[in-house]
Parts: sequence; C-alpha cells; structure tokens
Amino acid sequence: MLSLLLRTFSRQVLIRAMSSSGPTSPYTTLSICRPTPSITHVELHRPEKRNAMNKAFWREMVQCFNEISDDSDCRVVLVSGAGKIFTAGIDLMDMASDVLQPDGDDTARISWNLRRTITKYQETFSVIERCPKPVLVAVHGACVGGGVDLITACDIRLCTQDAWFQVKEVDVGLAADVGTLQRLPKVIGSRSLVNELALTARKMYADEAKSSGLVSRVFPDKDALMAGALEMAEEISARSPVAVQGTKINLIYSRDHSVAEGLDYMALWNMSMLQTNDVMKSAQASMEKKSPKTIEFSKL
Amino acid sequence: MLSLLLRTFSRQVLIRAMSSSGPTSPYTTLSICRPTPSITHVELHRPEKRNAMNKAFWREMVQCFNEISDDSDCRVVLVSGAGKIFTAGIDLMDMASDVLQPDGDDTARISWNLRRTITKYQETFSVIERCPKPVLVAVHGACVGGGVDLITACDIRLCTQDAWFQVKEVDVGLAADVGTLQRLPKVIGSRSLVNELALTARKMYADEAKSSGLVSRVFPDKDALMAGALEMAEEISARSPVAVQGTKINLIYSRDHSVAEGLDYMALWNMSMLQTNDVMKSAQASMEKKSPKTIEFSKL
Amino acid sequence: MLSLLLRTFSRQVLIRAMSSSGPTSPYTTLSICRPTPSITHVELHRPEKRNAMNKAFWREMVQCFNEISDDSDCRVVLVSGAGKIFTAGIDLMDMASDVLQPDGDDTARISWNLRRTITKYQETFSVIERCPKPVLVAVHGACVGGGVDLITACDIRLCTQDAWFQVKEVDVGLAADVGTLQRLPKVIGSRSLVNELALTARKMYADEAKSSGLVSRVFPDKDALMAGALEMAEEISARSPVAVQGTKINLIYSRDHSVAEGLDYMALWNMSMLQTNDVMKSAQASMEKKSPKTIEFSKL
Amino acid sequence: MLSLLLRTFSRQVLIRAMSSSGPTSPYTTLSICRPTPSITHVELHRPEKRNAMNKAFWREMVQCFNEISDDSDCRVVLVSGAGKIFTAGIDLMDMASDVLQPDGDDTARISWNLRRTITKYQETFSVIERCPKPVLVAVHGACVGGGVDLITACDIRLCTQDAWFQVKEVDVGLAADVGTLQRLPKVIGSRSLVNELALTARKMYADEAKSSGLVSRVFPDKDALMAGALEMAEEISARSPVAVQGTKINLIYSRDHSVAEGLDYMALWNMSMLQTNDVMKSAQASMEKKSPKTIEFSKL
Amino acid sequence: MLSLLLRTFSRQVLIRAMSSSGPTSPYTTLSICRPTPSITHVELHRPEKRNAMNKAFWREMVQCFNEISDDSDCRVVLVSGAGKIFTAGIDLMDMASDVLQPDGDDTARISWNLRRTITKYQETFSVIERCPKPVLVAVHGACVGGGVDLITACDIRLCTQDAWFQVKEVDVGLAADVGTLQRLPKVIGSRSLVNELALTARKMYADEAKSSGLVSRVFPDKDALMAGALEMAEEISARSPVAVQGTKINLIYSRDHSVAEGLDYMALWNMSMLQTNDVMKSAQASMEKKSPKTIEFSKL
Amino acid sequence: MLSLLLRTFSRQVLIRAMSSSGPTSPYTTLSICRPTPSITHVELHRPEKRNAMNKAFWREMVQCFNEISDDSDCRVVLVSGAGKIFTAGIDLMDMASDVLQPDGDDTARISWNLRRTITKYQETFSVIERCPKPVLVAVHGACVGGGVDLITACDIRLCTQDAWFQVKEVDVGLAADVGTLQRLPKVIGSRSLVNELALTARKMYADEAKSSGLVSRVFPDKDALMAGALEMAEEISARSPVAVQGTKINLIYSRDHSVAEGLDYMALWNMSMLQTNDVMKSAQASMEKKSPKTIEFSKL
Repeated sequence: MLSLLLRTFSRQVLIRAMSSSGPTSPYTTLSICRPTPSITHVELHRPEKRNAMNKAFWREMVQCFNEISDDSDCRVVLVSGAGKIFTAGIDLMDMASDVLQPDGDDTARISWNLRRTITKYQETFSVIERCPKPVLVAVHGACVGGGVDLITACDIRLCTQDAWFQVKEVDVGLAADVGTLQRLPKVIGSRSLVNELALTARKMYADEAKSSGLVSRVFPDKDALMAGALEMAEEISARSPVAVQGTKINLIYSRDHSVAEGLDYMALWNMSMLQTNDVMKSAQASMEKKSPKTIEFSKL
Repeated sequence: MLSLLLRTFSRQVLIRAMSSSGPTSPYTTLSICRPTPSITHVELHRPEKRNAMNKAFWREMVQCFNEISDDSDCRVVLVSGAGKIFTAGIDLMDMASDVLQPDGDDTARISWNLRRTITKYQETFSVIERCPKPVLVAVHGACVGGGVDLITACDIRLCTQDAWFQVKEVDVGLAADVGTLQRLPKVIGSRSLVNELALTARKMYADEAKSSGLVSRVFPDKDALMAGALEMAEEISARSPVAVQGTKINLIYSRDHSVAEGLDYMALWNMSMLQTNDVMKSAQASMEKKSPKTIEFSKL
Repeated sequence: MLSLLLRTFSRQVLIRAMSSSGPTSPYTTLSICRPTPSITHVELHRPEKRNAMNKAFWREMVQCFNEISDDSDCRVVLVSGAGKIFTAGIDLMDMASDVLQPDGDDTARISWNLRRTITKYQETFSVIERCPKPVLVAVHGACVGGGVDLITACDIRLCTQDAWFQVKEVDVGLAADVGTLQRLPKVIGSRSLVNELALTARKMYADEAKSSGLVSRVFPDKDALMAGALEMAEEISARSPVAVQGTKINLIYSRDHSVAEGLDYMALWNMSMLQTNDVMKSAQASMEKKSPKTIEFSKL
Repeated sequence: MLSLLLRTFSRQVLIRAMSSSGPTSPYTTLSICRPTPSITHVELHRPEKRNAMNKAFWREMVQCFNEISDDSDCRVVLVSGAGKIFTAGIDLMDMASDVLQPDGDDTARISWNLRRTITKYQETFSVIERCPKPVLVAVHGACVGGGVDLITACDIRLCTQDAWFQVKEVDVGLAADVGTLQRLPKVIGSRSLVNELALTARKMYADEAKSSGLVSRVFPDKDALMAGALEMAEEISARSPVAVQGTKINLIYSRDHSVAEGLDYMALWNMSMLQTNDVMKSAQASMEKKSPKTIEFSKL
Repeated sequence: MLSLLLRTFSRQVLIRAMSSSGPTSPYTTLSICRPTPSITHVELHRPEKRNAMNKAFWREMVQCFNEISDDSDCRVVLVSGAGKIFTAGIDLMDMASDVLQPDGDDTARISWNLRRTITKYQETFSVIERCPKPVLVAVHGACVGGGVDLITACDIRLCTQDAWFQVKEVDVGLAADVGTLQRLPKVIGSRSLVNELALTARKMYADEAKSSGLVSRVFPDKDALMAGALEMAEEISARSPVAVQGTKINLIYSRDHSVAEGLDYMALWNMSMLQTNDVMKSAQASMEKKSPKTIEFSKL
Repeated sequence: MLSLLLRTFSRQVLIRAMSSSGPTSPYTTLSICRPTPSITHVELHRPEKRNAMNKAFWREMVQCFNEISDDSDCRVVLVSGAGKIFTAGIDLMDMASDVLQPDGDDTARISWNLRRTITKYQETFSVIERCPKPVLVAVHGACVGGGVDLITACDIRLCTQDAWFQVKEVDVGLAADVGTLQRLPKVIGSRSLVNELALTARKMYADEAKSSGLVSRVFPDKDALMAGALEMAEEISARSPVAVQGTKINLIYSRDHSVAEGLDYMALWNMSMLQTNDVMKSAQASMEKKSPKTIEFSKL
C-alpha cells in the first residue's frame, strides 16, 4: 500500500519534471526529457502556435527520432503536446512556399520538386515507425490534420476525455498525403468510419475514438493521461528490450505482409534473438515471482 | 436558426423528390435522380420484387456507374432501395439459367463459361469501387446475399434501426463469389464475426452492424436515414472534387498495398494534384471562416 | 416448443458425452470425440497441468488436424480445454531443451536449428488454418501465451464471462513467434490495443475481448459456452460442405491478398464448385421452407 | 513427300489470301481475315502511313481483340503489318490534341484527364494479353515506339532478317507509358540491354533481337516470315483449346506472382479443366500416333 | 600434373560406382548412392520404362528429398537418369486412375479431389526447391513433360550434346500443372521462347537450351556429363555449408520478392549466420592459399 | 567526316582528363570529375589496394550519390575503377572489426548490431539505384565479390575483353549479403548460370558476361571502353532529363511489381510529366531532323 503511494508520488514528480519550459537544444519545436533513464519524452513545444507543424518541426522530428533509434539507453518513447492542445496540424503560413509555390520551370519540374517535398514530409512520420523502440502518444485537446498523420504512425494511442481528432485535409482542397490515408484504415476497424472521417473532415471525439479502436484508453484529464502514459511506458521499459523491440518490428512487418510471410520473417528473427540471456533472466524472475522491473537487461 | 429551419425544410423537399415513381430510362431496375446538381441518387427500384437482383440489374449497374464516373457534374453518389426493404439479394429464378444451367460441351467448357459469368457479375460491384466519386449507401429493412456484396463495395454505409444484414450464400449451397468474402473482412474489425456471419448465414441487426463497424451511423427510420445520408452527401459534395476523389482513390489503393507502397503512390498522386487552384480557394475560404459550400470549384 | 425442449435436452446429452475422461489414443494431450457424426470435438486434455503445451502437444496437434482434414465425415471442428482453464500456454519445463539449449557447434548452426524448431512449432497452428473445415474455439478461464497463438488461428472465437487472454511472451524475454504477432492484428480491429497487449503483456478480459472483436460471443459460464458452441457447430455442419469449406478457404486467401486477387481466385474456385448438386438441393429446401438440416449432402 | 509439297503449296495460297487489299469493316486501320477457320489474322493496315498508330487505331484494337476473345471459333491470333514496315509507332500528328493539348482548368484537372487518356491507351495493348488465345506477332522492317509496346504484349515474337526495333520515346521527351517499360524487362533476359535501349533510343537489329530473346525466330524475308508464322499458328490451333488457352492464362499469371502463388492458381485452374474430354481425345490420338490435327475438339 | 591425373582417375572410379544396378531400398524408382560422403546421388531408376514417372515415383521423391534435407552429412545433391534417356515424363498408364478417373459424387467433389492430387504432385518437385542443399541435375537424351517440371525445380542444369527437352502437356490436352509454367519463365531469359515451347510442344535441343540459358553447360556425352557434374558437386561441397545453403535459400527467396524485401530478408539471415566459425576458417585458408577442400567444416 | 574526327579527338581529351591523379576532396576512396557539364564520373580510386572496399568507401559512396541525386546539372553518372582492375571487392582487413568482431553482450545483441551493419552496407549500393540519373559502369580487369554487388545496382554494364567477374562470397564462408543474390538473377537471363556462379565462386569472363546479358557491350581495351562509355553517356545526357530519369524510375519500379501495377504507376507518373516543355522541344527538333544534342532543356 505504501509502495503504491510512493510509486504514485514519485510519478507525480516525474510528470512535473516533464512539463518543460521550452524546446531543448538543438531543437526549436521539440522539448526532450528523460523522466526515467530508459524513457524518452518528446514534447511538441510551440504552445503559443498550438504546436502547429512548421518547417523546422518536419526536420527536427527526423533528427530527433534518428537519435532515439541509436540511443541504446532508451527503451520507450512518449510523445505529447505542450499547452492547450496536442497540435493544430500543419502551419500553412510557414510552409506555404514549399507547398503552394513550388519551384520548377514547367509543370513536370514543379511536380518533380513537389514529389521530393512530399516524400521528405512522409519521412518525418515514417521515422517513428522505423524507430525500433515503442512509441506511445498521449493526445489532449485537438489533434488536427498532420496530427492524425503523426499519431497513426505511433504504436499506442491514449487520449483525454476532451480530445478530438480531425482529418482536415479535404477542407483545404487536398488529399492527405503524409500517412493518414495509408495508416488510419489499418489502425481502426471500421472502413465506413475511416471513409466518413476522411471525406467529410468531421471531428471525432474521445468516445468514438475509443469505441472505434483509434485509442486504446481514455483518461479524464491531461494529468491523468500523462500519469497513465508514463505508467504504461514504465511497464514496457521494464521488459527485455530484445523482446519488446523485436515485437514492434515484427508487428509492423506483419501488417504489410501475408501471414505466411510474416511467420517466415519471425522465424528468421528469433533464430538469433532467442539466444539472448534475457530469456533466462526473465524466466527466472518469473519463477521467483519477481517483477520484471527488478531485472537488469543489457543495453540494446 | 432560421437558416437551419430552411435547410431542414429544403432537404425535406429534396428527399420527397427522390422518392421516384419508377425506374428511369434507360433502366428497368434503377431509378436515377439529382437531388442537387452534384449528387446522383441511384435507387434500386423493383419494389414489388423486394429489389431482387435480376439479369437486367447486373447489366444496368455497370452502365449506370460508368456513366456516373464520366459525369463531371456529379461529385457524390447515394444508393438506396425503393419500397419496404433494401434488397432481397439475387433473383434466383431470373438468373437460374446463367448459374444453374451453364452452357458447355464438357465440364471444362462449362467451367470456362461459369468463370466468365462470375467475373462479369463481380464487375457489377467493382465498378462502384472504381468510380472515383464517393458512394454512400443507405440501407433500410433487409439487406440479403448480393446486397451485402453491393454495400461492402460502397464507401460509407448508413442504416435504419430496423435494418438487418445476412450473408446468405451458404444457405443455398455456395460460397459467396461477388465480393463479400473479399471485402467484408477489410470493412469490419472482427474476423471472428465475419467468419460467423459467412459460415452460419445468421442475421446481423443494426446495433451489431454499428458496434462492429459495418455501418458508421444508425438512424431511427427511413426518413431520418435519407435526410442524414443526403446531408452527408451535401457535406462531401461541397468540398473540392480534386481533394475528395483523390482521397477515395488513395484509400482504396492503400487497402491493397503495404504502407510504404501506399505512401509512394500518394506522393506520385499529389505531385500534380497539389497544383490545383482548389487549394488556394479552400485555404482562403477557410481563413475567411466561410463554409466550403460557398466556393465555386471547376468540374472534374 | 416441444421440439425446442427436445433439442435442448439432446444437446445437454451431447455435451455431457463430450466431457471425456482423458486423452484419446493415439494422443496423450488431446481428447477427441464426435458429439454428432459431422462434428469433431478436440479437447486440450492435460487438466492437471492446466493444459500447458508440452512437446507431445505440438506434435499431436499436427497429426490430429491432418487426420481431420482428410476425414470426409467431419464438417466442423470444435476446440476447447479440459479442466479449470483453457490453457496456461507453453510448458516451458518440458520444452526448455528445444528452446533454451538448442544444438549446434557455433552460433550459425544453433540459429539454423532454432529456425527449424520455430518453423515446426508455427506449423502446429497453421494446420488449423489449412484444415478446410471451420474451426470454432471455446475459451473458458485463462488463455495465455501459446493459447493466444492457437485461438487466432481458429475461425470463430467464443468465450465465457470469466475468460481472460494474455500475450505473455515479452514477460519471458522473447517476441511471440508462433502466430500471435502475425494473426492478432488481422483478427481484431484496433491496432493500438494489439500493440498494447503485445508490448505490456497485460490481461484482457471477456468484455474487452468482445468489444474489440477478438471473440464474437460471450457466454455466462462453461456449460452455456459449450452448448452455444455446439449449437453453432451444428448450424454450420448442416450446410453444404462445398459451400462451407469453400467459404473458409476463400476467406483466408482474401486476408492475404488484394481484393482484385481475391476475386480472381474466387471466380476460379466457383467455376467448378458451382457445379455441385448441393446448390439444387439447398435451393429446393429453401423454397420448401425446410431447414438445411433436412438435406443429405454427399461427403467431401 | 507429296503431302509436304501439298502442305507447302496450300500455305502459299493461304498467305496470298492474307495479303488483303485494305481495312476490313468496321475498321479503318485494321484488316482482319481467316486464313484457316481457327486462325484470325489481324493486319495493321495503313501502309501509306507506315502503319502509324492514329486515334482510330487505339480504339479499333480494343474492339477487335474483344471480339476475338469472344469468338469461340478462333484459337490463335496472328498480327502483322501491311506494306514496307511493321509500324512507325504513334501518329503524333493525329494524336497531338490528346497528348499535347489535354483539357482541364488547372494542372490537377489536366493531369486527371491525361491519366484517363494514358490508361485508355495502355488498355489497347493489355487487351492482347487478356485475350485467352495465343497471339503471335510477325515483324518485318521497322518496329518503332508504340510498336515495341504492342509486340511485348504479344505471346510469341518472330521477325525478318531486316527487322529492327527502337524504344523511341526518350527521343521525343517522354518516358514510354503504354507498356514497354513494364513488359520488355520481363520479356528479354538482359537488364543492361533493356536499360540501354530505353535510355538511348538506339536501334536493335534482328540478330541482337534473337540473341537477347526478344524474338524466338528470324526468317530471311517477309514471305518466309508469314509462312513460318502461319505454320506455327496452325501447330498451336491444332491442339486442345482448353490446354492452349489455359497455358497462356497461367503463364501470364505466373509472371506477376511468386512460384507458390502460381502453383496454387494452377491447381485451382486444372481441378476443373482436367475434366475435359480433350485429354482423352488427345491421349488416344497420341497413342495411335495420329497428328493432333486429326482431332475434333469442341469449341471454347 | 600427377595430382590432376589421380583426381581424374579417382573421379572415374566414383562415377562407375554411381552406375548402380537398381533402385535402392526403400525405393522402387530411385537409386541412391554417396559418391563422396557429402554428395548424394539420386538416380531415376526405371530404365526399362524410360524412367517414366509412376505413382511410386511421385511419393518416393518426397520421401527421398525430405530425408536428404535432414541429413546433415549431405551438402550437395546430384540428380540423373539411368538408362538411355533422362525421363519420358509422366507414366500415363500408371497414373490414369488419379488423373483421368478421379473420385467424387458430383463435379464439385471431383474437382475437390483433383485439386488435392495436383497439389500433392506439385509438392514432389517443390521439395527439391525447399531442400536447402543445392541440387544439380544432369540430363542426357530426352527430358519430356514432367521431366521439365522436375529440372526447373533444380538449381543447376547440365546436359549432354544429344539432350532434348519438350514441354509436352498441350499435346495431351492439358496445361502443365506441376511447375513448368511457373518456373520455366523465371529460369530462362526469353519469354517468346518459353511461350513457343509451352504452346507448340516442340523439342528444344542442347544448343538452344544452352543459348537460352536453360542449362549452363553442355558436355559431349554422358560420361563427360557425369564427370563434369560430379566435379561441380565437389567444388560446391567443399565450401562452407552455412555459406552454400544460405545462398540457395536467399536466391529462391529473392526470386519471389522485390529487391528491397530480398535485402531485408538477407540482413535477417546473415545477422546470425555471419557468426559462424566457417568465416574465419575460410578466410584463413584463403590467405594461406589453401583450397577450400582442405577445410573441416562442422555439419549443418 | 571531319566532325567525326573532331568528336573522336575531343573525346580523347575528355578521357585523358578523367584519368585523375587521386581521390577528390572530400573523398579518400573516390575521384570525382565532370568530363562534360552534365556527366559525373565517379572513379573508385585506391589503385594501390586494387580499389578494395574499405570502411571509408562504404560511407563515401552514400555521400557521393546523395550529392549527385541532388545535383540538377548532372544527367548521367559513369562509374569506373582506377589502376589495373575494377575492384578486388571488400577490404577484409579494414572491415574485420565490423564483420568479424561485432559488439554485443549476448548473441541477440551481436545479431542486432550485425543487422544494422549489413543494412548500412546494403544502403551503399541501393543509393545507386535510388539515384534518378542513369548510372553506367565500365569494368576492366577483375570485378570480385562486393564489385558484383556494386555493378548489379548500376543501370548499364560495359566491360573490356579482359574483364572477369566473380561472386566470391562462398569462398570466405558467407552468403553474399549486399545485393548480388537479390539483383543478379533479375539482371541476367539464365538462373542456372546465376546459381552456378554464386555456389561455386567460379570466374566468368567477358564473353560469357556478354552472352548471358550481364554486360551489354564488350570493348577491346580500357581506352576503348572509356571512350564507348563516355559516348553512350553523352547520348543519354543529350536527351530530356524528364524523359530519361522518368524512364529509370519506372524501369526499377516495374522490376519489383506486376505488369498491372507498373502500368498504373506509369500513368500516375506521366499524368504530370507529359506536361513538360521538353516534349514540344524534342518533337520540334525531331521534325527538323536536328540532333537532341542541340536542344536546351531546363535543369531537373
């Protein structure tokens, strides 16, 4: 009982520490911190602009997640937004030159350059998927346009009761092109709903997000959300990184392949990964009824 | 407030106009009308036969949707059924000669001819999917057998509280072969349910259809259904056709490809489609807080 | 009314008969019986070990399902567990030598042998999928680790109110490698939930299993579960085996292919399968308002 | 010996009959004749324009091959060109309006229309591939640009010693878009050569066409070519149409799928096609040492 | 020089030993021997029936190759035919009951049984491909029908100057269904030639087999062929089995996947296989200019 | 005639200029020059080490080709080797630490790190393929091991009469893992030959390289090779970059997709790319019988 109190208390401290006062060098749109040694917290941090995604953001996300991928101390990533909402989506003003006035001497050359730009922006969210560490995202308030592209590339989605989601792109005259149309249908179970959201740009609130499977948990407010997200992150970070990261990689591989191909890949993966000491350590802890949090795993 | 009353009133008028008195030339099983200039309403219209699908129907659907695909005024399609139910499915009496007594001098030649027939029937619903304009379907009462094949090829499914759905084919000794087995599992999120429905031919009612994701909305009765469907159709038809139709095409492409392939295709699509004037028009209306319905888009 | 009573009564008798007293020759971990001539009941039967999966189990499942596949009398399979729970998953003690101390002179050779072992174990559940007869699984109590691999390879999942499910593998330091990561995301509609379950190893209870679509029905207790499962099995076994088994085969093919490829395969399938006498028999019974259970179908 | 003479003589007569005096109704660019009841000869017939492909041609090819596909008398198709060369490729003058001045209010709408046009043109050659009857093509003189797209969609390629081939498109500022880039690499065995031809637009002569595998036979002149092509067509048309057309369909399916998928499709195909009387007829003729040409096969 | 003489002499002895006097227990159609401890020679051995493939053959090949796959001493397999020719193909007389008079109460059930039969026969040659040890095939004289299916499933094809190949199936009224149509186009580089062979059933002689790439070497007579094949088998069997078998597995995987997928699979493969001692042993021998034949590799 | 002499002379001068005296900053293993403004020549330049691939090489190739991809002046790339041979392959001494003594606390972690390393090395040659500008490679002398991986990722392969090629990897105990096993079978037309080369590590000389399609041209010596390669590079660089680069991108896409998917992608590509001014410029030059070299194309 006391331990529970202590745990709750210490988590409060952690969360407070996570409310950073601003972007962290070398970033201007992101604030990075380490609530525990094996959890990296990435906060979208342009609260005065409702965390709108400007040019710097698209570049910094790639840099940030590439670093996280290489950081053998980090075992789980938690993404959230600073200020009143998660994100208002793309910062059209800042990005207008890229999207609305692309370079090029003729239509073919303009198209050529636009393709490079779109591909580069797609990369911003694909790095989240390629990062072998699980990425949890905690959404409060609004998650609009590019925000939906972002969260569908994450592994686990959590939100507050006041959260809402909007596939905004048709409202500005374009088809969503950085991931929503590709990932959303593979993330939730009702195709009729996916089509309705993408074609009408209507808002979806937390309850429908939960019943449709977009998020797996809803919390009453942001404090509870961050506490719950952090607790889940701690649960995951306490497990063998060999097991956890192999699970993520194979789940994503399976999404894009037949069951037979997925099984074949899985066998290739585990023929070496089963030779880890983590299996013995975990089995022993399990038999001794010890929590995984007591085990020391080597870095990965 | 007044505007809302007026809008509601005018929609009542529209819907009444949609209750056509019979099939529209050149069709004998379909009634086509235009509730608004950019919405095409396709009504299954053999009410005395519970809209059963006879030979003429299979041919006329292809002709009808090919015309809609080429009609640059039409931006959204709404499908519903005249009379007491949506459809009783295949009209076995009328089609028996095709299916039960196929031509051919030996088993191989009979099989050859059956394959042509099946492929032709599959085409009847695949044209709905290939039509670049979104297709909403509004189901009331029963939707049986071929009806499920039809609605799973549509983009958005709505129904009344008294609607029910039945994958009927195993009851008549055959595996469903014009789309249900291919599309239903990609349309709803529970594979156990899909298998149960297809293997037992049991009925599924509106509530389960909603909770399983087959439909995205349920309305109390047919009037409310048609009003709701029309309102949604108007919402979609008010958006840029470049955005809307590009969204449909890419959503369908993504269903059948890996995320990476879907993103690649999307980038190729938008490298030219972003060069539309619709983006500027939409962005401007958005900044001026005007409804998309006030924008004039060029035909597509 | 009386017939209903009789039917209920006779099903009680059947179910009692299914509570076998032990494994059936030639099996040591499975008990096989025939509640009706066309239904095969496969019971996991090591109740004293909580139906844990030992070496014999992996081998016997393959043998058992290969025989069922070849048994032209059997039309439906029902899987359940004897004793207090469905299964505790892998029997680590019994299998340690395979998984934890694999043979091999160097890392490459150990990996080579592990790959053979994993592939062999994967086969244990893939035979369920390759078996053309529908497989229903009835889960009560716990379904842990390898149990989830097993049930996701079945066609229809039912459970009791007290059932719970756990993707246990990360807790013992490894990524699940005999099917869960490949099949679970294609079986339920929320990817966020799949990832959460696989990465945290948390338990999921019956209600969430139902709302997420893992199971399609929940029953109050084991008796009700077995009665309901048997009733569904009877419904299916009363239909044409040509229709039923063709439906299963095409549903699985469609999962792993695009809609267009699925339709093409379906047309090839039905070009001969429509030439069955079952269509005429079923159509006639249907017109005469007779139950499918009154029809005599040839063996398949 | 006499029979050989007679056969050679009769073939001469056939070939002379094939040198038609002009396009055959309803076509303006094609001349169709029947050298034998089961062989359809399609001749590109705008000799005064070097068989350049004008708007009418693209439309007529589709119509022509759709009719051939439905013609159960026809078992083999032979394509050749009237006049001095096989074809000079696309008739840019006639098609300029489609390709160079496409309709559309903005870039997106022009692109939308161009996509429809390109897809329609691609269809012109894909109908050759979808036609279940084998298509032999006999090339003399030049085969330029669109000509290469055409012949790579045929099944067997033959040519004269003076024939040459040119992937011309980069010379007019565009990437070949109606089939060459997709089919040529799957038709010949040297990727370095494919790339060289497509990127430099250099001519390839008959000897290199033979050694690279583009054509399977070279004849000294057009008369010998037509005689050889007709002889091969007769050989094929004498075989069971069930065997021949099933072979073509499965060869094309296999090109686009893995070996395992191709085998699966093949098994589905032959489960009904082996039930043809043609097998018994052929086997009997074979045992009696009779030529296949003596067998009467039913139409397909 | 002396060593060369000795080597040639000893190979003569080996080959003579390989001319077995009859099938080897437990086989009635195959003769198995071990010219060297790491080479298994499988000889089709029904010379009095021109090695025609009877029912026993199809079963025995599966048994034989499954055993070879599990035999860690064997590193290379060599297949050839006893008597005057390699094989006359299927033994229609013996197999007529399976193929020409299949069981079943109606067309659907006959088709169902035929599909099982075809799948089983396909398996006979697919086991060659799934066997991780490279399989060389040495063809002399005729290789007809099923013989072509067999050799296209082998890894390396060699033949005598008097060898000829015939895709015979269309001559007996059916499309080849045990591998030729799937593998031949991926084995040789000219699609026009593949189609010609499969559609006309004409013979192809050794020179064209070499220039088209079907075989990679032609020898003057059977003695030279067997000596050359054995020499090549020795070369391969002297290399690291980890390297050799990994090469075969990845070559086959790559055939059926995109380059990107092949590379991904390769990386997964080698992440453990590079940890073999064979690399160090081989690198050392290489630096010391020793032949690979001097290295002792552990079994695999 | 004079113009020919002049052209030949000026090319001599160009080639001499290309014989650089050493690596070009910022590279230590590559020498980069510009024989013409639109051709980039990349020379492997460690002649004293037979251009063996050390750690720096793998890194510099990626950097070099990324820069070339972004360089809108460059239209064609030419790769060759300085000194006596093209390349001796991997520099095992320099790379031993990466490959032979990888980091990691247990087998799983060593495997994890090896996978990263292999993936990074694969990237070194995949950048050649992703570079939209055509890459010609000119091989003289030996091309061993990693050299074969490199050249199969190039678009056009040319060589001298004294060139030879060796898939060396099985000789050092490993399966080739940076591209040869994936690309070689898609580059040449004889699978039997591919397997023989990869499994025996035997050398293949220029004549067989030509007849098998690995190279498309053979030149008598290195001077002739470089002159021929440069001439071909000039031919390509004179064409529209929109046409040329679109051709490369679609050829590679088509290799990894079905014909239908390739055609679909092609239509999407050209719907914008046909709107280039290059088509009109090229068509006009063509009608005026002017060489493409006289046309000014905008940069791409």
